[in-house]
Amino acid sequence: MTSSARARLLISCPDRPGIVAAVSQCLCEQGANIVHSDQHTTDPAGGVFFMRIEFDLPELDSRGASLTRALEPIASRFQMDWKLAYAARLKPMAIFASKEDHCLLELLWRWRAKEMVADIAMVVSNHTDLRGLVEAYGIPFHHIAVTRERQDQAEAAQLQLVEGKVDLIVMARYMRILSPSFIRRFPNRIINIHHSFLPAFVGADPYAQAYSRGVKLIGATAHYATETLDAGPIIEQDVERVDHRNNVEDLKRIGRHVERMVLARAVTWHLEDKVLVYGNKTVVFA
Amino acid sequence: MTSSARARLLISCPDRPGIVAAVSQCLCEQGANIVHSDQHTTDPAGGVFFMRIEFDLPELDSRGASLTRALEPIASRFQMDWKLAYAARLKPMAIFASKEDHCLLELLWRWRAKEMVADIAMVVSNHTDLRGLVEAYGIPFHHIAVTRERQDQAEAAQLQLVEGKVDLIVMARYMRILSPSFIRRFPNRIINIHHSFLPAFVGADPYAQAYSRGVKLIGATAHYATETLDAGPIIEQDVERVDHRNNVEDLKRIGRHVERMVLARAVTWHLEDKVLVYGNKTVVFA
Amino acid sequence: MTSSARARLLISCPDRPGIVAAVSQCLCEQGANIVHSDQHTTDPAGGVFFMRIEFDLPELDSRGASLTRALEPIASRFQMDWKLAYAARLKPMAIFASKEDHCLLELLWRWRAKEMVADIAMVVSNHTDLRGLVEAYGIPFHHIAVTRERQDQAEAAQLQLVEGKVDLIVMARYMRILSPSFIRRFPNRIINIHHSFLPAFVGADPYAQAYSRGVKLIGATAHYATETLDAGPIIEQDVERVDHRNNVEDLKRIGRHVERMVLARAVTWHLEDKVLVYGNKTVVFA
Amino acid sequence: MTSSARARLLISCPDRPGIVAAVSQCLCEQGANIVHSDQHTTDPAGGVFFMRIEFDLPELDSRGASLTRALEPIASRFQMDWKLAYAARLKPMAIFASKEDHCLLELLWRWRAKEMVADIAMVVSNHTDLRGLVEAYGIPFHHIAVTRERQDQAEAAQLQLVEGKVDLIVMARYMRILSPSFIRRFPNRIINIHHSFLPAFVGADPYAQAYSRGVKLIGATAHYATETLDAGPIIEQDVERVDHRNNVEDLKRIGRHVERMVLARAVTWHLEDKVLVYGNKTVVFA
Repeated sequence: MTSSARARLLISCPDRPGIVAAVSQCLCEQGANIVHSDQHTTDPAGGVFFMRIEFDLPELDSRGASLTRALEPIASRFQMDWKLAYAARLKPMAIFASKEDHCLLELLWRWRAKEMVADIAMVVSNHTDLRGLVEAYGIPFHHIAVTRERQDQAEAAQLQLVEGKVDLIVMARYMRILSPSFIRRFPNRIINIHHSFLPAFVGADPYAQAYSRGVKLIGATAHYATETLDAGPIIEQDVERVDHRNNVEDLKRIGRHVERMVLARAVTWHLEDKVLVYGNKTVVFA
Repeated sequence: MTSSARARLLISCPDRPGIVAAVSQCLCEQGANIVHSDQHTTDPAGGVFFMRIEFDLPELDSRGASLTRALEPIASRFQMDWKLAYAARLKPMAIFASKEDHCLLELLWRWRAKEMVADIAMVVSNHTDLRGLVEAYGIPFHHIAVTRERQDQAEAAQLQLVEGKVDLIVMARYMRILSPSFIRRFPNRIINIHHSFLPAFVGADPYAQAYSRGVKLIGATAHYATETLDAGPIIEQDVERVDHRNNVEDLKRIGRHVERMVLARAVTWHLEDKVLVYGNKTVVFA
Repeated sequence: MTSSARARLLISCPDRPGIVAAVSQCLCEQGANIVHSDQHTTDPAGGVFFMRIEFDLPELDSRGASLTRALEPIASRFQMDWKLAYAARLKPMAIFASKEDHCLLELLWRWRAKEMVADIAMVVSNHTDLRGLVEAYGIPFHHIAVTRERQDQAEAAQLQLVEGKVDLIVMARYMRILSPSFIRRFPNRIINIHHSFLPAFVGADPYAQAYSRGVKLIGATAHYATETLDAGPIIEQDVERVDHRNNVEDLKRIGRHVERMVLARAVTWHLEDKVLVYGNKTVVFA
Repeated sequence: MTSSARARLLISCPDRPGIVAAVSQCLCEQGANIVHSDQHTTDPAGGVFFMRIEFDLPELDSRGASLTRALEPIASRFQMDWKLAYAARLKPMAIFASKEDHCLLELLWRWRAKEMVADIAMVVSNHTDLRGLVEAYGIPFHHIAVTRERQDQAEAAQLQLVEGKVDLIVMARYMRILSPSFIRRFPNRIINIHHSFLPAFVGADPYAQAYSRGVKLIGATAHYATETLDAGPIIEQDVERVDHRNNVEDLKRIGRHVERMVLARAVTWHLEDKVLVYGNKTVVFA
């Protein structure tokens, strides 16, 4: 899974003939062996083309630079937005949490079971409740209190902790809103989770609203945070059934279960370079 | 399933001690044998109590009146809203449709397979496209054109067809909005189906909006029509997965599948007297 | 949830008229208020009748004995197999585990989140790997090595730990087979989890077999242990999708997820007295 | 969907470097534009490689022969098992049925709704019950009685109807077993559906067995028929939930629903050239 020879090439570019041929020819000449490959085009006539190639290149550490040089003219010719990721270089990530532990625990658990491969550099929280839990996993825990008046100061402290240190921030039920300027520093690199309902409920206490409307499904949506709250590109969604026997507390409990499953899937896919963003949506090569 | 001895007793009333004892004692004395029983209370201290009892009473046709008389004082004592339904008396229903056939066909099919037990008295449509299909099932088809200017006249004609003739109206993708005055004549007896998305999309062409937002789930909601459009008590909901490979046409096709499944389940539960409404929500003893 | 007034009455008996009337009349006279009630009969004519009534009785601790005395003649008259369980009296349980932690962790987590209400008295393992994890939760951990030659001795030690101390034993991926004589001491009180596939695969390494057959679903089944291995009454089952991209390791990982979800649901239902057994099957009033 | 320019190239071959490069280079030179592409390898070191490329080639009818000639040396070099399918050339298929109509109807319906694109050349049945239904869709219906004594004669008559006329045979609950010699004539071109349970039940009336074991899931499996009954490569599987309230008739009804959904998906994928077989399993590029 984290073989030292394994790498992933991600490409988005305007679709036109010859992209696959050029890239696969280049990989072949460099000695790479394609393991998986996924492609998608929004429209063969003038749409956007997406490709994810997972390949093995023996001695990747020493030969990766040469591969990069070989890909550059192709990328330039096809106006590619591209990235080469080495599977063995674990992505450093921070988890932001508040008091609820369900999402955090699911992530820590999958991480320890090696089902989710990352370098969890730290957990940052505006409360101290989860310190013991986090430190038991051997992960640094940073408490940064956030008050309405001193939000800027808190964000500055958070930024100092994470900037340049992590590739990904996961909001594991972190109950504070990050400012647009913070979010702009991590484009498509902050994953958030929120509940979702059919129909949508606006305003306070959506679970109470969902209960009084008698919904039969409770859902959750994982998405990349953008400056528009809860409106960023969707990575994953799922639902669970509920019925009239479930009270508001039950709905919240069931909501927690679906949240932790959906967030864990979304984060894992991101870490495996399976999510490509364009416009306000995602291509997930799961 | 439609045994001549089988009946269903449905009760809603303020919850207080002794309801189950009184009703079950009465049924026992009358010679009824309980087959299924479901109960629910929104709150044991002063909430609303719901009960559905399915029972067999030999010679129901002749002994039903005596049972009704025996239940009346109990109903009065506990301020019950109640109903006694004989399984062998098929509920007459009308299906309203427009041009799309997927929901209509699913209902006709389950009806012919005896999975959905009803007396489908007629199909009413504002178009003639589905006439051949409906008549092949031996069901009367009525075409009532609906124009914006003469909507009142069309509704009057519809009303004349259905009033006193049917217990239930199913809107199987009937693309016209019924007027509040029409809907008020059939309280909790008109079932409608509509698509639903996470998040919700307001305005024209929701499938195009869902596509451009990159949703991962497409859903449908069956509900009782009320004067507030698409905001009546929810009977059933379900979703199907979609991904980036699905174009807008795919989303619509997948939407049709989930619509027909959800509508068929909701209608079947209604026909089996499994749905109780209170406030703007349902108790479904499925 | 664990209100001191809350109790559950579970009944199985030959079905005949008057059971519900007699029981509900008795509860009413004793001052109990029914919160939920579920009934099922395998056949109204001479089948088996099952009932679960959840009720509130103020001052249950002092008035419970009087209720029990009042129920006794009814139970005798209808030949009932019955049980009265107080919600506030947590069921003591032991978890048996080996080296894998996924099922154990899911149970401990739900227990700490108060989603699963029990008194986890101990974890018993034939390995020491999980000691740290268990003790971090403040739960006693007992290591009892099990060798093929000294299995009797190990079981005797296990029995000494649990007999008279626990109501329920959960085999959370405990990889040793318990002897028939051990199992007979805990009828319908040992819950086990195992993988399940469509079709079934007999013999060694079922995941490898499932992989080579190209199955599209991986499942798990939670059941009560009986003397016939993996053939006891089924409590819960579920599946997850897999496809050709999943290798044998992926299938195992996905299998672990479905195992922990299915086992946690089954154990929770058992603890809430929602599972009744008859013959080799269950009635689950979930 | 059935654009005259659209084609699909399917390839299986021993995996080695350069396959994708060679094929995509060739398609590019011939003027084809790749719309979708899926690849899979069972093992980058010496495994089997699978690829499905969907592309548009203007004037495909006249330029297809040239493309084929250009691909031939590549196919030969890499020892490819390959196929070029034109989307506009509808695959002729026969549906074999007996008395049950649920699978047949689901296929006819999707076909008429253009959700399943094929040329349904005929329905062949060993009973006459479904004649009216089939002919209402304008499809030829052939009745060939099958008796135990004259099975050979019946198969000869069936063979005369289908051989050279159809590419695919779908057994839509056809309740007779086809002989090995018949099946060998249509390798990976006969799709069958059967129920499936966790655990598996061998022998007569599996629904009664599933009921008496109290299963919580009812499933169905669509597979290619091979000489070993119900053991061919699996194309698709799914399950539905059941519980103690469902009697044997309910299980059968629910089984019919899951059968028709699973069969329709499997047939549609086959018709869209999305299923590749190797050994006794499938790669489904759904």
